This record gives sequence, C-alpha cells and structure tokens, in this order.
Amino acid sequence: MNKETMQQQIIQAVRKVKETNPMAPSITNTVTINFVANAQLAVGGSAAMVYLPDEGEFIANAGGAVYINVGTLLPIYDETLPRTAKALRATGTPWVLDPVAIGIGEMRTRLLLNFKPYKPSIIRGNASEVIALAGLWELDGGTGASNVRGVDTTDTVAAARQAAVALARYTGGAVAVSGETDLVTDGKTVAWSHGGSRMMEKITGCGCSLGGVAAVYACAADPFTAALTATNVYNLAGRRAEEQSAGPGSFQVNFLDALYLATPEEIADNPFELEEA
Amino acid sequence: MNKETMQQQIIQAVRKVKETNPMAPSITNTVTINFVANAQLAVGGSAAMVYLPDEGEFIANAGGAVYINVGTLLPIYDETLPRTAKALRATGTPWVLDPVAIGIGEMRTRLLLNFKPYKPSIIRGNASEVIALAGLWELDGGTGASNVRGVDTTDTVAAARQAAVALARYTGGAVAVSGETDLVTDGKTVAWSHGGSRMMEKITGCGCSLGGVAAVYACAADPFTAALTATNVYNLAGRRAEEQSAGPGSFQVNFLDALYLATPEEIADNPFELEEA
Amino acid sequence: MNKETMQQQIIQAVRKVKETNPMAPSITNTVTINFVANAQLAVGGSAAMVYLPDEGEFIANAGGAVYINVGTLLPIYDETLPRTAKALRATGTPWVLDPVAIGIGEMRTRLLLNFKPYKPSIIRGNASEVIALAGLWELDGGTGASNVRGVDTTDTVAAARQAAVALARYTGGAVAVSGETDLVTDGKTVAWSHGGSRMMEKITGCGCSLGGVAAVYACAADPFTAALTATNVYNLAGRRAEEQSAGPGSFQVNFLDALYLATPEEIADNPFELEEA
Repeated sequence: MNKETMQQQIIQAVRKVKETNPMAPSITNTVTINFVANAQLAVGGSAAMVYLPDEGEFIANAGGAVYINVGTLLPIYDETLPRTAKALRATGTPWVLDPVAIGIGEMRTRLLLNFKPYKPSIIRGNASEVIALAGLWELDGGTGASNVRGVDTTDTVAAARQAAVALARYTGGAVAVSGETDLVTDGKTVAWSHGGSRMMEKITGCGCSLGGVAAVYACAADPFTAALTATNVYNLAGRRAEEQSAGPGSFQVNFLDALYLATPEEIADNPFELEEA
Repeated sequence: MNKETMQQQIIQAVRKVKETNPMAPSITNTVTINFVANAQLAVGGSAAMVYLPDEGEFIANAGGAVYINVGTLLPIYDETLPRTAKALRATGTPWVLDPVAIGIGEMRTRLLLNFKPYKPSIIRGNASEVIALAGLWELDGGTGASNVRGVDTTDTVAAARQAAVALARYTGGAVAVSGETDLVTDGKTVAWSHGGSRMMEKITGCGCSLGGVAAVYACAADPFTAALTATNVYNLAGRRAEEQSAGPGSFQVNFLDALYLATPEEIADNPFELEEA
Repeated sequence: MNKETMQQQIIQAVRKVKETNPMAPSITNTVTINFVANAQLAVGGSAAMVYLPDEGEFIANAGGAVYINVGTLLPIYDETLPRTAKALRATGTPWVLDPVAIGIGEMRTRLLLNFKPYKPSIIRGNASEVIALAGLWELDGGTGASNVRGVDTTDTVAAARQAAVALARYTGGAVAVSGETDLVTDGKTVAWSHGGSRMMEKITGCGCSLGGVAAVYACAADPFTAALTATNVYNLAGRRAEEQSAGPGSFQVNFLDALYLATPEEIADNPFELEEA
C-alpha cells in the first residue's frame, strides 16, 4: 500500500459519504451519545441510537455499519449486545467496537470476551484499552494487567502496537489507537496519523465520536480506509479547532464546524505515514 | 381562522410562557435530552425528565403539559409510557407525542398502537412518521408500509397532509409535520410555516426539541396555536442561526440564542399561510 | 476560619486539581451527564459515569471522590445506589450527593432516606431540595412539605440556612445551597459566595455540574473547601460568561471556557464572606 493510493481511497470514502448520507446506527453510552450523533452528521452521515435487543438486531440488518460503545452499560445490554453482535456477524455488516473502560465491572468483561467470535471490523480505543482487549482475547501484545484508568489511558500508543496488529490480524479488520500520534493498522500496514489537539482531552467524547465517525466511513470503504479517514479528519479538525478556541467550550463548537467543513482532499492531506506492520 | 387572529394568539402564547415559566416535563430519548431541555428553557419554559412509571404519573398530574418522545426505548418504558398516557388522559393534561422511528422494534409499535385511545394533544413528526402513525392507527392517509429510515424521512410533507389531518381529527388536537415547509393542522385549518435551515438536519434533535417546545407552549395555548408557535419560532431561529454559523457546531449555539432572543411579535411574523384542511 | 486562610486553601485545591487531574466518577442523570463530564474536565479533573451495581462499587473503591445525582432514576438504581453508598462509607471515600427533585416518586424518596447513614461529604442542592432533605432525615430546618417544583426551587437560600447547617452537622461534611447568593457551610462556618448569572437558570445542568466539580475538588481538599471552591468558580465563570454571551447557547460555551481559564487566584478572589453558623 503506497501513500498516494491510500489518499485516493480516503478521498473516495469522504466523497461517497457526503453524497450518500449513510446511516450508521449506534448502541453507545449516555455521556457522549449526543456528540457521537452530531459528529456523524457533521461528516455527512446519519445517526440512530437504540438500547433494546430486537432493535439491535434491526440495526444490524439495516444495511449500514454499526457502532457499539460499551461506555455506560445498562442491564439490558446483557441481552442486546450479544444478539446485536451475532446479527452483525450473520449479515456480514461492518461494525466498530469501542471497548471503553475495559476492566471495570463484571458485565463489561463478559460482554467484551463474548464479542471475540463476532470479529468487529474496526476496534477503536486508547492504548490501554487496546492492550487490555488483546489480553482478554489472549492475543499477542495483550496483558491481563490492564492499565486502564476509567476512561483514560496510562500507556503510550507505541506500547499498543503489537496488540493492535494482533487484534487486526485476528479480526481481519482494522484497529485504531488514539493518542498523541494515532496508530491505525489492518495487520499488514501501520499508519501513523498526526495532528489533533491537547484540547481533545479536555472535552468528553472525542474518542467515542471518532468510533461513530469510523462507522460512517465504514459504510463507504474498507475498515482500514474507514478507520484512517476518521482518524485523519479528527486530527485535522482538532488542529483547526484549537487555533480558534479559547477553551473547551468553544473548542467543541469549532471542532464540529471543522468536521463539517473538511474537504476530501484536506482529509487525505492530513499528515500520515505508512509502514509495514 | 384568519391570519391576524392566529398571529395574536401566537403573541399571547409566547408572552404567557415568558411571564409564567411553565414546566413541561418529558419522557424522551437520551440522544437529544439535553437539547430538548435547553430549547425548552430558551423559550421561557422549564424542564424535567423522568423514566419511572410512578414518576410518569406524577408529571401527568403536575399541571403543565407533557412531552413523550419514543426515541430510545428502555425496558421500563413498557410500564412507564402506558401508565403515563393513561394518567394524562384521565387528568385532561395536554401532551405531545413524537413517534420517532416508528416501525423499528416490537415495543415501539406496541406502545404507539396503545397510545391511540389516549389521544395526544399534539403529534409531531417528520412526514414518514406521521404517515406511519396514521397507518398504525388505521386512519386516512396512513400506510402500513412505512418509509421511515431510522430517524430520517423519505416522504415529503405534502404527502403527509391527509394523514396529518386525519390524525388531528381523530385526536381533536393538532399535528405538526416537519420538513422543508412545515405543516401544522388541527383538522380544520392547515398552516404552512416557512423558514428554517438545511443546517437543522446537520444537528441531532431539532425535531425532538421542537416537540418539547410545543409542550411548553401547550401550557399556555390550545394545541394548534402551541404547535404553530413552536414551528414558527423554530423556522425563525433556524434562519437566523444559519446566517451566523460556519457549521453545525456554531449553528446549534446560535440556534439556542435565537430561540431565546425571539420576541412574540417576531415569532408571529414568521412567514406562514393558513388554508382549509 | 478567617478569609485569608480560606483563600489559601482554595488556591491549594485548584492547583492540586490542575496538577493531578483527579478522577471523580459519577452516577448521574442523563439530561446533563455530558455537561457534568465537560465541566469536570474543564476545571482539570477527569470523569467516568456508570449505572451498574458492581461498577458503582468499583468507583467507590477507585480512590477519588464520587458524585451521585438522583436526577433521572432508572430501575437498576434501586440496587446500584445503596451498594455504592455503602461502599463509599466503608472505604471512607468522599462523595457528593445532589438530591435533585426530591419528593418526586417513591424510589427517589426511599433512596434518599436510605442514604442517611452513609453521610455524603458534600450535599449540593437548591434551597427547596436542601430543606426537603433535612425534612426527610428529620433534622432541624427541614420540612416534610417540600416546595420542590420538579428541578426548580421555590424557596430562598436564606430560608435553607438552618437546614443546611443541620445537614452539615449531621454528616460532618459540607452543604452547598445554590441560589442568587450561594451558601456553603460545614456546620460551623457559613460562607456566602456572590456572582454567577441569571443565565445559569436558562441552561440545564449548572446545578448538576456544580456537584460534579465539587467532587473533583473533593479529591484535593476537605469537603468545605471543595464545596466553596466549586461554588466560587461557578460564580466567577457565570459572571464572565454572561458578559460575552447573546443567549443561553453561547453562554454555555463561554461558561465552559471560563471554567477552564479561571486561575487559582481568581477563584479565591471571587467575592465571598464567612460568618459563624
């Protein structure tokens, strides 16, 4: 994979989303659910969120890509998430998993463990979450001793490289690790995407909504392209929003505007490098 | 009903809300619940949201108008919504129904079907939702084959006219259909309200929060006046916010400001026409 | 306690939070959950929200301070809140209680009654809520006849003074009463903090997020200092945001920016007086 080809694929993904307004439904946490929907809309997609088991199966059969974020688990998730994941696998629908706060609580561990055979197309997390998920799934680079601190990371992106590659090889999809420089891999190629802003840690939901935006692009591209496109537009929008913002309140506003205004070419031109995994 | 009388009623409704700060509690979805509350506060009302059955009955007896939006159903809604609707009918409390995403999932269909005898004072939806609800309730203009795409519409407002009129005649209240030009009817008169912004589709919750704002005005006016007042202020605020906004982030901010700043006279002067149903 | 010493403690609390980025997890309502998290992040803390019983116990053992807000109760709270409160007491973890809408619904009354032996470190509410909680716990200044109107107050802050002092003496912690002038007390000293903005009533969640921010400061200071620091930064940020805002949309943005930008010294210099309780 050379960079120019990758950039052409990013441009195609962004254009297709802007033209077709694809629906990427979610089962996601209540903290950032509004931001996830607004970010999906800002890049040209459409959003719908559900909690119930048969509604999870409905969205798995609705034709787009689905985003599952385990942030704030509710009791019904015990039924909803396995049934949805099973339906996603059965229909071959692309889906994005964000293993938020892996390690907290019995249900979260059980659900994330049970996702293994349903192979998410894209896994998005911070370094600690990716390492912990690889550990839970007994893949290379994982560790049982998670350094997850609630929703925060205590590991570097580089430290999660082996786990990310192993997860991508296992699923046959892509893995995106968020950090100062972001890593995206399909198990063969590793992309490093630059940009963003320290201010992205001062608002809640940049990680969650990146997962939702990756699901939007997964309606229009392969998992690796979708994950890298989402990562690039976040790095671009974060950098631009920071220049215009006095603090996190204005940053969130400017960030959504920047997501909306980013052109396909600008997203493809956000600095990134490719190397062999 | 002539237009000048209608405008006077709108002015009275807006003034009364600004003077009395009426409470319009909601049972609504988690995606846009914050935006619903903030829009209700911006126009001069007050907000409170609940999930539990006895709390639904409490708000039905609290004296204001109530907003029920079936966006993100939770298991407890199976008990909460019928008990709340029954209490609303028993007390004669005005209530607004938004049949979001009608057609998705077994519980949603069952709940919406069971609302029929409790006759919501105002029904607010996009064209596809209004047509599908009329179909579910076996009224004119409805169709069993819903074109609802998640939370999006695939029908035009004009196509929903017959269904809207039939629903209003059945309930004895009003129906508001959101689209490029919005339709509001009480089954006798049809109002067409102009304005708004394409940007309203680029943020989540303009429809949901319009329902909540209609409930605020329903504390101070009859259903038709309340629904048209809410629709007019949304069209006014949308148009103004678009002029000031670079993208959907700033649009949402400017939209809330515009809701807050709109005067009774400006809301009454937003372009609309009346015709016989 | 003289004012200069108090100001030094405020400065220390703010500095420690900015340096250590403490995690203050919450169980809070779905209406303002995003604003709570963003306010906690803006002042330098970190946020995580949960619903499930064992996750409540997890956060009670995680080492920070915990925020419990009973705004939008879900059925699982019947199990989650008592287990969490018990774990908080067992571990001696500081926690903040916001008894939102006390008096609405059977579960809310029962849960709030059962919190009594677990003694929250900080209680934050409006005047009516504080009076009603003192009444529920059979303390001085309380009354069974609550004037709570949903989430709004119908009492003055001064009228809640006796109840606030009695609650603080009972818990051994602090109580913060929000209103035009805010009262904070540890049962020995009463602080009156000035500032803020009428616009704070025009957005949802200023009260809720103040509770979350108090929990952040409770990771770095005693309950009285934490509650007063949170109240001071809210009064400072509200005053500044109002000067820059056309309406409630821009106010919320500017408010989060102002929370972020406030220096330790500015927070300590926000006008307040101390007197004996």
